[in-house]
Amino acid sequence: MSANQKIREIANIQGLGHIEFCVRDLERARDFYVDLIGLHETERDADRVYLRCTESREHHAFVLRKADAAGVGHISFKVSSPDDLERMQKRFEALQLPTRWVEGEELGQGRALRVRDPLGFTIEYYAEMEPVEWLVQKYDQHRGVAPTRIDHVNMLTPDAQYGYQWYTDELGFGCAELTESDPPDHRIWASWLFRKATVHDAAVMTGKGPSVHHVGFSLPDPISIIKACDIIASAGYTDSLERGPARHGISNALFLYVRDPDGNRFELYTGDYLTGDTSIEPIRWNLNNPIRQTLWGSPPPRRWFEESMAMATLDGNGVEPVSEPQMQAIPDYVLD
Amino acid sequence: MSANQKIREIANIQGLGHIEFCVRDLERARDFYVDLIGLHETERDADRVYLRCTESREHHAFVLRKADAAGVGHISFKVSSPDDLERMQKRFEALQLPTRWVEGEELGQGRALRVRDPLGFTIEYYAEMEPVEWLVQKYDQHRGVAPTRIDHVNMLTPDAQYGYQWYTDELGFGCAELTESDPPDHRIWASWLFRKATVHDAAVMTGKGPSVHHVGFSLPDPISIIKACDIIASAGYTDSLERGPARHGISNALFLYVRDPDGNRFELYTGDYLTGDTSIEPIRWNLNNPIRQTLWGSPPPRRWFEESMAMATLDGNGVEPVSEPQMQAIPDYVLD
Amino acid sequence: MSANQKIREIANIQGLGHIEFCVRDLERARDFYVDLIGLHETERDADRVYLRCTESREHHAFVLRKADAAGVGHISFKVSSPDDLERMQKRFEALQLPTRWVEGEELGQGRALRVRDPLGFTIEYYAEMEPVEWLVQKYDQHRGVAPTRIDHVNMLTPDAQYGYQWYTDELGFGCAELTESDPPDHRIWASWLFRKATVHDAAVMTGKGPSVHHVGFSLPDPISIIKACDIIASAGYTDSLERGPARHGISNALFLYVRDPDGNRFELYTGDYLTGDTSIEPIRWNLNNPIRQTLWGSPPPRRWFEESMAMATLDGNGVEPVSEPQMQAIPDYVLD
Amino acid sequence: MSANQKIREIANIQGLGHIEFCVRDLERARDFYVDLIGLHETERDADRVYLRCTESREHHAFVLRKADAAGVGHISFKVSSPDDLERMQKRFEALQLPTRWVEGEELGQGRALRVRDPLGFTIEYYAEMEPVEWLVQKYDQHRGVAPTRIDHVNMLTPDAQYGYQWYTDELGFGCAELTESDPPDHRIWASWLFRKATVHDAAVMTGKGPSVHHVGFSLPDPISIIKACDIIASAGYTDSLERGPARHGISNALFLYVRDPDGNRFELYTGDYLTGDTSIEPIRWNLNNPIRQTLWGSPPPRRWFEESMAMATLDGNGVEPVSEPQMQAIPDYVLD
Repeated sequence: MSANQKIREIANIQGLGHIEFCVRDLERARDFYVDLIGLHETERDADRVYLRCTESREHHAFVLRKADAAGVGHISFKVSSPDDLERMQKRFEALQLPTRWVEGEELGQGRALRVRDPLGFTIEYYAEMEPVEWLVQKYDQHRGVAPTRIDHVNMLTPDAQYGYQWYTDELGFGCAELTESDPPDHRIWASWLFRKATVHDAAVMTGKGPSVHHVGFSLPDPISIIKACDIIASAGYTDSLERGPARHGISNALFLYVRDPDGNRFELYTGDYLTGDTSIEPIRWNLNNPIRQTLWGSPPPRRWFEESMAMATLDGNGVEPVSEPQMQAIPDYVLD
Repeated sequence: MSANQKIREIANIQGLGHIEFCVRDLERARDFYVDLIGLHETERDADRVYLRCTESREHHAFVLRKADAAGVGHISFKVSSPDDLERMQKRFEALQLPTRWVEGEELGQGRALRVRDPLGFTIEYYAEMEPVEWLVQKYDQHRGVAPTRIDHVNMLTPDAQYGYQWYTDELGFGCAELTESDPPDHRIWASWLFRKATVHDAAVMTGKGPSVHHVGFSLPDPISIIKACDIIASAGYTDSLERGPARHGISNALFLYVRDPDGNRFELYTGDYLTGDTSIEPIRWNLNNPIRQTLWGSPPPRRWFEESMAMATLDGNGVEPVSEPQMQAIPDYVLD
Repeated sequence: MSANQKIREIANIQGLGHIEFCVRDLERARDFYVDLIGLHETERDADRVYLRCTESREHHAFVLRKADAAGVGHISFKVSSPDDLERMQKRFEALQLPTRWVEGEELGQGRALRVRDPLGFTIEYYAEMEPVEWLVQKYDQHRGVAPTRIDHVNMLTPDAQYGYQWYTDELGFGCAELTESDPPDHRIWASWLFRKATVHDAAVMTGKGPSVHHVGFSLPDPISIIKACDIIASAGYTDSLERGPARHGISNALFLYVRDPDGNRFELYTGDYLTGDTSIEPIRWNLNNPIRQTLWGSPPPRRWFEESMAMATLDGNGVEPVSEPQMQAIPDYVLD
Repeated sequence: MSANQKIREIANIQGLGHIEFCVRDLERARDFYVDLIGLHETERDADRVYLRCTESREHHAFVLRKADAAGVGHISFKVSSPDDLERMQKRFEALQLPTRWVEGEELGQGRALRVRDPLGFTIEYYAEMEPVEWLVQKYDQHRGVAPTRIDHVNMLTPDAQYGYQWYTDELGFGCAELTESDPPDHRIWASWLFRKATVHDAAVMTGKGPSVHHVGFSLPDPISIIKACDIIASAGYTDSLERGPARHGISNALFLYVRDPDGNRFELYTGDYLTGDTSIEPIRWNLNNPIRQTLWGSPPPRRWFEESMAMATLDGNGVEPVSEPQMQAIPDYVLD
């Protein structure tokens, strides 16, 4: 290899592996995600609770870290081998992107590479993680809405056209769907990008960034979206039900956006489709097509457009609230 | 009997039987209700299409009538026997309420009694109707979301306290739930009243009346509510999806409010509970408790409060739009 | 009243109230019904655990009683008032049926009347029970498959034609469906009898009796039947899954028959229809129509026909296994 | 390339593309698959009806061909490019496997390569097919149980260990799960092999072959399995419901096996999991573990083991019934 080779040529990214949310009250957050949502606790240390989903094969798919402010610690993608990591480190150096090796800092995980990517996000790549008991067929242990996997992360960046290029051309992501401006520009306003064969591992949307709009968890069936509303509301978290249930035009997923007790946003998500056939062209949506947001026409609330999560710096610190509004091009049909 | 005996002493109302909607384009309405919603056409004549649900045992549960304006023609309750009708006619006369006998005007139905009730609604009572094929186990013929039955009618009247008394004390309805004002008044703002053993056959809410807020159809399961959104939106009727899906606090039903092509409103409804145990006290909700509207906290749109359907006169004519707003006490949390 | 008046003229039976199962290991049974099935424990004493369902308004809908053998302690129907009980006691005396008053023996329940009915079953009637918190909208507390209510009891008796007459003519039950022999006899082989407005509170089938074939719990939706299979199997109770999931022809219910750790049988049941309209004739099935058993054609296992639960005597003792086979007319298509 | 290079090095198989079923009555088969199951007709010619699923992006995923006997015409996998096909043809020649080019014979499809593979199956590879309207968001056009895609084919061959090697080592399939004999042999009895990121595109089981046990269609959610039973039974095809609904241990899928009017077998299938992470080891099941067949313990009927579909020869002819029994190692717990 040479440092001129793009990452898509020197490494095999498997997909989104996990994400770390910063929370001020670790127990409160743990109870919310475990007792109500139905993530499973694998292990914990002084500052972190490591959680996984029913289909998880390895130690964690989601980490709660005690911090002074809410936000996102890092976003972690899995690659095929430790050798991939070595080659990626050299490529990032060549691109003059700051990296650091993480070893022993996260329980259950092998040596990992963190980088501040060109969009300003703190991204981690890892190849090895401890296997754990597979919970798919332990139905008697399922609780809440039993998310099957971490599905995707949705990121805001001022230049989403560039974000698309970074993910597709450099990292080798496929594109399932995209939103673009009117002709003749056809400028990419947002894209849904995948390595695993679903609609996305990462979405990149236009907005003030680097910030994370939400992380998405996959649910096993449509009825679980209704169940999520019922459980979260019954437990007194009515205000946490930010948007939905409804169906996205883009991705076709039935969704519910939820704010956790710290205000971090996640999406419960089900009903997208299988991707991976490289002969399929991306589905293209015009920015002004309201169906792309919701097939059913129901308008999102304003805060869904205006609020987003801060991104921690490469050293894991510096999670500060991003000034509002976050997302550009708030449509006319928003709910005030 | 004497004319002093109340109807609850001289007749046995079985529950809501059917309702007649006035539509300007009969074919368009028929296609909407049959092809998308999944009602079944039993028969038609020049001006009317007679529809039923999968659990219907008799000729019709819903009638579409060609008219110059949208609205509700009549609301029809079933009683146990033709003798009930005779006794009721005398009682209404004694109460100086105008009645008329209907015979042969509606296909499939025996002699029926129509009355302009004290709230100003045109109510029909009938005892006999032609039996039809039961479609519950004809799953291969089910279409759309396959409503199981007509469940209830929701009516607006300026004095809902009186409406409650009329339905309970005179007609013998049970009360499953009610909304009342603050103490010490505890004035009834709305009540959910039943003869069949569900939460309601009729709801009476405070508003400008006589007008009909909506009719409710029962769906077989929660997933059908999501399916309804998908089907109606896919068919190009996105604007018809007025409110939902969400879960009511009152009744616990999962719901979707839909406007038909003429603007008439119906509710797709599932997941309420069995009533009928006479030892159970009504569930009481304070008017200002937002949970009574939606357990999940999602606010209704303003038009859900402001718009309602006109009621035809006793002769079946005179369906005129009611001036807005219809409902009193629009909450602060309405969506504009 | 006179002792010549039938119970249907002197009392108002509301429906099945609860049933008592005898179990050898109280903790094991409690864990099975609470942790896996999702009944809720209201209270316990030395020998009994009192359980209820999500829609229960009163203290218990199901009782586990420690005993030396599995079986059914008593079957309990609710009536409208204590006065009903007094009148019923006199009527039973006139019919020379043994009765006893139960007071304080069951926690939460007012004075109750137990009778050995003409079919030999120990039946209890009660009018009053302590109200409890309604759990319908406490979705965060739902576990397992969250039964909504106790729905029905299914009883075996050698003369089911007489059983039908006792329940309809004496007790005033309606009949939703029945199975009968070929013409010209049309002898009733089984009947589905209701007081609440569902297909049945009690079914009476031909077999060696008095014995109880099963008790049915209502589930909130069809998907919960699948969930029940998954949970029960995951917990290691694969052998408890006796029959189903499938759909009955009779009642149209989607069902799963389960044997508890003591071998007692219950049915998880959903998707029947509303009854109560007195103008509707019972649906009649020929005994040899295989569709009445399962709409989908799947044959039941032999033990479903051959095994049944013993009935305790009026004093609550004497639960002894009934000699097999229990049910007459085992069809040819049974699974060996 | 050289003819020594394995196909996994010279071609990119995307996954199962479509399968061709031979039927004696084309209209009857078309009505069954379109009206009841919910496949969509794209086009037809004199001898064939071309069908697709809701997620299909191209002309067909399933073909019905008029023939003198039931069976399977060919099994077709998609590759990335026409160049792949050229390279594969040379490789098959080098392996002395008979091939033929198919051009114009199947509507909508580009030039395709058919081969008689070492297991004796007639396999087609194609790279190009006409795009069609995507039906995912045309919910108003969905009928029946609306299969989302053709998911997999299940094949019988006498030496399933060799079949595993052919698919993994030569063709580059991943292995999600496998069934093996007792130690120390650990001989592979069956394997679930994938190119797309699901549990399988192809399963290879031990039995008399080449024959096809079934083709699997993916359904959008668990409730659709119940709906399939209801629809198929209501339409009078009770005998077509061969096995299920139940959940497989292997794959975790909820399933229903159905025989079409010609006796061809397909599986309706939902609820498996995402694969594709190359670091995950296959899940290994012992041949005698009954849970691998059904998590719920319900035994399959004998005909499920004994009957299978004949495979047409390379020229498309010669579909003859395979003599029974087809599958080796019929377990003790089969239903007679």
